Amino acid sequence: MKEISGGVCAPRGFTAAGIHCGIRKNKAKKDLALIVSDRQAAAAAVYTQNKVFGAPIAVTRKHLENGKAQAIICNSGIANTCAAGGIEAAISMCKLAGEGLSIPAEDVIVASTGVIGQPINMQPIEAGMPSLIESLSSSGSDDACHGIMTTDTVKKEEAVEFELDGKPVRMGGIAKGSGMIHPNMATMLVFITTDACISSEMLQRALSENVQSTFNMISVDGDTSTNDMVSVLANGAAGNSEITCEGEGFEAFKNALTYIMTKLCRCIAADGEGATKLLECTVSGAATLNDARKAAKSVICSSLVKAAMFGADANWGRILCAIGYSGAAFDPERVDVSFESEAGEISVCEMGKNVDFSEDKAKEILSQKEIKIKVTLRAGSESATAWGCDLTYDYVKINGDYRT
Amino acid sequence: MKEISGGVCAPRGFTAAGIHCGIRKNKAKKDLALIVSDRQAAAAAVYTQNKVFGAPIAVTRKHLENGKAQAIICNSGIANTCAAGGIEAAISMCKLAGEGLSIPAEDVIVASTGVIGQPINMQPIEAGMPSLIESLSSSGSDDACHGIMTTDTVKKEEAVEFELDGKPVRMGGIAKGSGMIHPNMATMLVFITTDACISSEMLQRALSENVQSTFNMISVDGDTSTNDMVSVLANGAAGNSEITCEGEGFEAFKNALTYIMTKLCRCIAADGEGATKLLECTVSGAATLNDARKAAKSVICSSLVKAAMFGADANWGRILCAIGYSGAAFDPERVDVSFESEAGEISVCEMGKNVDFSEDKAKEILSQKEIKIKVTLRAGSESATAWGCDLTYDYVKINGDYRT
Repeated sequence: MKEISGGVCAPRGFTAAGIHCGIRKNKAKKDLALIVSDRQAAAAAVYTQNKVFGAPIAVTRKHLENGKAQAIICNSGIANTCAAGGIEAAISMCKLAGEGLSIPAEDVIVASTGVIGQPINMQPIEAGMPSLIESLSSSGSDDACHGIMTTDTVKKEEAVEFELDGKPVRMGGIAKGSGMIHPNMATMLVFITTDACISSEMLQRALSENVQSTFNMISVDGDTSTNDMVSVLANGAAGNSEITCEGEGFEAFKNALTYIMTKLCRCIAADGEGATKLLECTVSGAATLNDARKAAKSVICSSLVKAAMFGADANWGRILCAIGYSGAAFDPERVDVSFESEAGEISVCEMGKNVDFSEDKAKEILSQKEIKIKVTLRAGSESATAWGCDLTYDYVKINGDYRT
Repeated sequence: MKEISGGVCAPRGFTAAGIHCGIRKNKAKKDLALIVSDRQAAAAAVYTQNKVFGAPIAVTRKHLENGKAQAIICNSGIANTCAAGGIEAAISMCKLAGEGLSIPAEDVIVASTGVIGQPINMQPIEAGMPSLIESLSSSGSDDACHGIMTTDTVKKEEAVEFELDGKPVRMGGIAKGSGMIHPNMATMLVFITTDACISSEMLQRALSENVQSTFNMISVDGDTSTNDMVSVLANGAAGNSEITCEGEGFEAFKNALTYIMTKLCRCIAADGEGATKLLECTVSGAATLNDARKAAKSVICSSLVKAAMFGADANWGRILCAIGYSGAAFDPERVDVSFESEAGEISVCEMGKNVDFSEDKAKEILSQKEIKIKVTLRAGSESATAWGCDLTYDYVKINGDYRT
């Protein structure tokens, strides 16, 4: 497997575009994106588990009942959630895209991200659709990625090439997400394309299994969004024999999907609102996988841990505290904690107790851009990794007045 | 029931003191507190549910097995948690206090608050004990309250007088807590005294029942501390006939306890680390009490809601979002939300959808020091209130480098 360029357009048969149509006031910010396959593709998705969910989620769920789709339309600026006429607006977005592309509206996936509780104005979307379709190209992944961004500061885009029965297969993805990130089941907006040939059932299975160890393991602020969605389109253009059951091919496919999803996870966590550092917490030696996940996620969700990491303060007691209330089974007197980064590794807690360590060295390690928090529970052999970011002044600033 | 002054020394037979003994470097900050009853008292406590808990918690739990105690010794600066020799140190604190007061060490409740993972130095405590005991007085509640404070900016002290079979009974309490506040079962350090005569069993029952609707309903940062404890001493000096079962007397006692505990809750939430505003979220019309509590607590825990309140931004979608992932049962299309403060009340969401409202008026309402977030679910008749605070730059500053 090797990294390649091109994002969602790296796989054969996909084009994409992104424009400013006028949902946002800032003309420099793209607000409408489109991704299209040249043929109907197997499609799978996972959605937010928030009981309050956006109208686009409801419409996409219905459109994917048959496991097929050909295009994705997505706007940023307005979430189309908790607002009158939301379902009609989401259906209308699919119709407009479908008409322009000459495909059924039911083959269009729709997504929205932005402010909750304000109605979406269809006028700029309707007016902009022709030029959006006009600008579709095989180098359009970058534009599409910018079209779905909100408070994101960097674009999140990945692509790889791997082999399935001797044939080169490509997979690419784009993602957005910076605040309101604490996925449960799925997260934010992530669109993945591949030219692999795989049945809808196996595609959904690969996605659902992977999401537990990837997107469900990141958190920026503990808030599970109303509009989270991860979707995958597989159009079969690579020409491999269709994956319809478990086996070598399915494993190779899942590996590539895991690679793309993990990369995008790290991108989302590192670009958390206001973040200056990526936090990666790995809990090993847990009795069960569930314990490992609970403990790792609790650490990266702790406001106190996140603030300490911002200040490069090796306040490891907060890490034990977070594991203590995580619900994971463990013996506090058997826990080790260490910090690792480019600047080295330092042990700060052994068997649940303080160890003498150099505060200067710890400060140096915690001053890097990527911090690994390594926890060993000595209760078994399971492990899990979670991703998050530090809590900073800018997080407060960004969210203190997001709507203006 | 009327408010009176005197804090934990308001009830007859109680004295208190607080001094700087040297656990902290800053000589202006008291770091050791003592509360004493002139006779053995019925005692009850609830503790943190964090699996990682401080040595003082373990020792106090043992000392309260017989439901009796006479004194409380508490230090701030070091939490005596996850540090070698912690149990021995906690026992030693009880022994030193017991010897000085000529009471059994087993009748002493011990508590510590401060940094986790650093060993506590017994030398200053040993050296300071004589002068601490020397300074015990019936006007010492203020000093004791300052002795237990950490990042608190104001002291939290309350006292009331009420009647039990015609006799005036007093109850007083002090509390500390500002960060790492997300109680589960108990919270922070809260010491309540009363001269009521009540059995240990009924005292524990009153406390345990009340804690669910008071301290378990506040959150500053979602982090459940390792050292939370709420304890009550009832020394019977008021001379009422002992409360040993349910009935009018028990209800009157519980009312007073609820009053004291709710007042202290609001104080703790309002003085959350870096907070500029007290948030009070009441969820009504819930199908079950549990649903109401989950929803209310989820709102005041949301980083995005907290940051919006800091910015006086009526971004009510975040409130619906928080209720949506709370686990509470409800229909998003039947929810109403309004904001209320000294400056008035404004409805921002009806039946789950946006309503036209004046942004200027909303801004004015949300710029006050106490904000009420009122949510109606229209799913039943249960309600619950939770308390929290806004998320500010100062929270990040305080926790970015707490140890220095």
